Amino acid sequence: MKTVKVAIIGMGTVGGGTYDLLTANHDKILSSYGLDVQIKKVLDKDEQKLANKVKPEQVCRSLDEILADEEISIVVEVMGGVEPAKTFITKIMQSGKSVVTANKELISKQWADLERVARENGVGLYFEASCVGGVPIIRTLNESLQGDNIKSIMGIINGTTNYILTKMTEEGMSYEQALAQAQQLGYAEFNPTADVDGYDAMYKLSILSSLAFHTCIPYTSIYREGITKVSQDDITFGKNTGYKIKLLAIGKKKDNDVEVRVHPTLIAENHPLASVSGAFNAVFLNGDFVDDVMLYGRGAGAYPTGSAIVSDVIYCALKTSHVYTDFENDGKVSEDINIVSDYESKYYVNLIVDDKPGVIASISSVWGKNGVSIKFFNQSAFTQNDYVPIVIMTHTSNENMVQKTLGEIASLPCVREIRSVIRVID
Amino acid sequence: MKTVKVAIIGMGTVGGGTYDLLTANHDKILSSYGLDVQIKKVLDKDEQKLANKVKPEQVCRSLDEILADEEISIVVEVMGGVEPAKTFITKIMQSGKSVVTANKELISKQWADLERVARENGVGLYFEASCVGGVPIIRTLNESLQGDNIKSIMGIINGTTNYILTKMTEEGMSYEQALAQAQQLGYAEFNPTADVDGYDAMYKLSILSSLAFHTCIPYTSIYREGITKVSQDDITFGKNTGYKIKLLAIGKKKDNDVEVRVHPTLIAENHPLASVSGAFNAVFLNGDFVDDVMLYGRGAGAYPTGSAIVSDVIYCALKTSHVYTDFENDGKVSEDINIVSDYESKYYVNLIVDDKPGVIASISSVWGKNGVSIKFFNQSAFTQNDYVPIVIMTHTSNENMVQKTLGEIASLPCVREIRSVIRVID
Repeated sequence: MKTVKVAIIGMGTVGGGTYDLLTANHDKILSSYGLDVQIKKVLDKDEQKLANKVKPEQVCRSLDEILADEEISIVVEVMGGVEPAKTFITKIMQSGKSVVTANKELISKQWADLERVARENGVGLYFEASCVGGVPIIRTLNESLQGDNIKSIMGIINGTTNYILTKMTEEGMSYEQALAQAQQLGYAEFNPTADVDGYDAMYKLSILSSLAFHTCIPYTSIYREGITKVSQDDITFGKNTGYKIKLLAIGKKKDNDVEVRVHPTLIAENHPLASVSGAFNAVFLNGDFVDDVMLYGRGAGAYPTGSAIVSDVIYCALKTSHVYTDFENDGKVSEDINIVSDYESKYYVNLIVDDKPGVIASISSVWGKNGVSIKFFNQSAFTQNDYVPIVIMTHTSNENMVQKTLGEIASLPCVREIRSVIRVID
Repeated sequence: MKTVKVAIIGMGTVGGGTYDLLTANHDKILSSYGLDVQIKKVLDKDEQKLANKVKPEQVCRSLDEILADEEISIVVEVMGGVEPAKTFITKIMQSGKSVVTANKELISKQWADLERVARENGVGLYFEASCVGGVPIIRTLNESLQGDNIKSIMGIINGTTNYILTKMTEEGMSYEQALAQAQQLGYAEFNPTADVDGYDAMYKLSILSSLAFHTCIPYTSIYREGITKVSQDDITFGKNTGYKIKLLAIGKKKDNDVEVRVHPTLIAENHPLASVSGAFNAVFLNGDFVDDVMLYGRGAGAYPTGSAIVSDVIYCALKTSHVYTDFENDGKVSEDINIVSDYESKYYVNLIVDDKPGVIASISSVWGKNGVSIKFFNQSAFTQNDYVPIVIMTHTSNENMVQKTLGEIASLPCVREIRSVIRVID
């Protein structure tokens, strides 16, 4: 039997879930792994949160108390944000303690620095809980599929946006209605930007694609587009043509070319990711030998994320030595890697145009002139105030050429508005 | 950089896939993990298989050559079957080499013995490839979700039967037609018993439920029923009522009660397992904190299974010490565990009865007398030669009471045949 004393910094949702799990399943962890995991100290600036949950002898008033406690070997950081979390974690690792964190923004932005501090001090830095809650994707990338070249990773990795898009699809809500409901239920923040504009998914994709491709993919190299412009028209088009709209995080690697992007996507209904609904998330990988692999589970929430934290605590406690990710280029894109912006995709486009003769010819000729082949072209019979909607789906094309075409279409006198441009995956 | 020299015993499908992967991705494994994995020796009694694939200097004529080679630290066993594989693996571990195997039958039947030899000799025994091909389920059970009490594990874990059932469902084939096609394509053996009668799934469930529940679940404690009696009538019933038929391996644990069973199941169409088709497999877990998690991928085949083998080779090579599964009771059911045979389920029953007055009343009264509540009861309008089919779906009932009821129904003079009894999961 081995005793492990831990501290928890942050008694919010995930901190609370972690506390509950370590308390409820203490004996199970002891009997299964011979580990007696004890919560020795809990730090939070909100006295009320501590009073509600934590035993008086566990309450702690300052980071220094944790740093000075030589019995504590693992510290769980679930306060979130870049600072003071980075300063805290750095000091913790410098004091010889390992860190388990759920902080995707911090890992994404400061991974190279933190990894260096961990290595210098011979301690562990674990962050399974930073990506996709209870889905064991980081362990899988580190400890499974090691023989494969991972060719692509595609994920529904943000719970809030998947909840909103599911409500829009299944109950016909507008984006605004679905967001308001998500906020009421606590699935979305009062300021929902981090989720709905794709920042959260972007941070996670940075971490996951770096691990999958064994090279640093900074979040700044990721194309990012959120779901705020997705409309019922787009969802209805998908329903009528066999697609669902999901916010996908996509990473692909071929030789030294890497493409990484987060955007709403029309994905074919029979794709395994299309049926991942509500608060569930999933990551779909393709390796050159293993072929397709998908991991599915709850992407957020106190208990699933707490489960990932506790998994890391046990994993860390049983490790005799820690393994470090090598950032050969200090957190920048490696010199031999080419981040591709002119990737291939299919596109769905929704235009509002004047209802007069010659419009279809002038629009279709722009696509043709630029060599973008059209799979589907429909002008609705439904006219309103002299304008009509046109929906177009292209065959596989190049991003740059599609953007050039859209620029030319936007400048046509007959085009009132380009309402939607959504990439498509069959 | 670390050099690891391996031997492969068995140059069949999986051995060939492993050989190809280690050859094709040698440099990738070296650059990502600092591991130079070299195939030093390959043993197979079939000279032709060796000649087709293996370099002359790798060809090896006897196990003794491998045992005597001190440079070889890991041996991949992919010959299959219990003997001589057990004798080979035992000698290999006694010679101080670690073993990576895909042999589910051997692990399931001789795990305690083999684990003891591994522990005594301080070597590794790894078998990710033994369960569900390229799906990293064993690593997930060992290295993730450790904090959770796993409450249930349900899986489509046999590729052959899932292929046959998918063909029967999607193309209306009979069982015999689908089996013949599976045999033609190499998905099913000439003697298909191990797959279609559920032995393969039973061995895998024994391994997976032992790991999930942290207690030994011998394969002999598993209820097993294959797919040979599944008919188009059953599949049509499922289609009409919102279910798909899958061969499920099911393990559940509640306190000290464990139920483990392999049988055809009508599973609700909206369950994530229902859409796992063809050669794909999946394992669906539920933990008390993580909630639902599913892992999906190719359950068999040279390359996906080779990927799992190579994952274990790399994992083993990077380990500084090995962890052993504790079989406190020498491979038997632990004294504190109760294997439950009288579990709860819903049931679908297809009867052929005489077409005459009073039949419905006499059949329904038997269910009522035994306290089994009926959700759905349909006598077809279609009569043939004085007999008619009746289909029944029960509410949640107990296995023993349903079997007692079926025994009484079988003895009614008006009942010609009980055609199908299939358990149902919503």
